[in-house]
Amino acid sequence: MELLEKAIQERGTIIGDTIVKVDSFLNHELDTSLLYEIGKEFQQQFRHKRVTKIVTIEAGGIAPALMAGLAFNVPVVYAKKQKSLTMKGDVYCESVYSFTKQVYSDVTISKDRLSSEDHVLIVDDFLANGEAAAGLISILKQAGAEVAGIGIVIEKSFQNGRKRLEELGMEVVSLARIARIGEARIEFLKS
Amino acid sequence: MELLEKAIQERGTIIGDTIVKVDSFLNHELDTSLLYEIGKEFQQQFRHKRVTKIVTIEAGGIAPALMAGLAFNVPVVYAKKQKSLTMKGDVYCESVYSFTKQVYSDVTISKDRLSSEDHVLIVDDFLANGEAAAGLISILKQAGAEVAGIGIVIEKSFQNGRKRLEELGMEVVSLARIARIGEARIEFLKS
Repeated sequence: MELLEKAIQERGTIIGDTIVKVDSFLNHELDTSLLYEIGKEFQQQFRHKRVTKIVTIEAGGIAPALMAGLAFNVPVVYAKKQKSLTMKGDVYCESVYSFTKQVYSDVTISKDRLSSEDHVLIVDDFLANGEAAAGLISILKQAGAEVAGIGIVIEKSFQNGRKRLEELGMEVVSLARIARIGEARIEFLKS
Repeated sequence: MELLEKAIQERGTIIGDTIVKVDSFLNHELDTSLLYEIGKEFQQQFRHKRVTKIVTIEAGGIAPALMAGLAFNVPVVYAKKQKSLTMKGDVYCESVYSFTKQVYSDVTISKDRLSSEDHVLIVDDFLANGEAAAGLISILKQAGAEVAGIGIVIEKSFQNGRKRLEELGMEVVSLARIARIGEARIEFLKS
């Protein structure tokens, strides 16, 4: 998605050779027009699939997921993330490791919010190691829901997330695929 | 806003006499059509004001703020919330007390994301004691930005948040104002 690659290139901040911060339009400030286009693009890319619900994780995933929900005209559910707790209540839960923060979190969705009738498109802002997406897939399986596919805004294609999700049989569509983060320039894969 | 009051009445869960859970359309699952209407309503209500940016707090505020941003065609900035930390970096910061969780959090916005040129509409999902909104006002003042007003999805009018914000000179618009939470029914104020 050219508009998105341009935003990453021009408005992202490169930190070392593995991180590009996109606080200026995706992770802290939200570029509403760009996000609207991102939502429409997810709908285009997955129009061959039956989608009854979008699922994501707070907080970074909420904005792109909501715009996808708007384009598909379906509800969005965002999983909650918290330091691992013992009390679980009436939720589906999966433990997810954050490589950035080096901490395990519990990712939870209330049982009320999912059903075995759901056909779910998972949407997230980033795909790196695939930990978060794999956690959501596990939760959706617990609920007996169908996973229609995985829509990612920015994929770090030099990490193993896509491979991991494809090995789970998932269709992964990433709107921007970063091949390499150079000192002053980001190289993209053709998506 | 009638559509919203209807959703609260029919799809909210009453817990005791002070809490109504709206996980079914606003705080966990997001009703995208309703949120789209909420965004448009904020734009209508504040169309007399100059608004260059929407500011909110993660995670509950992101969805209504994004829809307001879409209606106004302006960017959204969501403040980050974390347990009080010593390391602050290059951010505006305010300590905010959560009465529900009984814990202080640091609410932060990167200095890069605000300027003294900004005319900001604050948007949040709930107004109870006004702690979060007052924290955001303090951050916006640190940045020298103008506060155009405060748009709230659900106000608990039996708590003192509105009074507190009005005493700070703020225009507060709440799309639903709860006067009283009864055992089986919620009473609204005319807004």
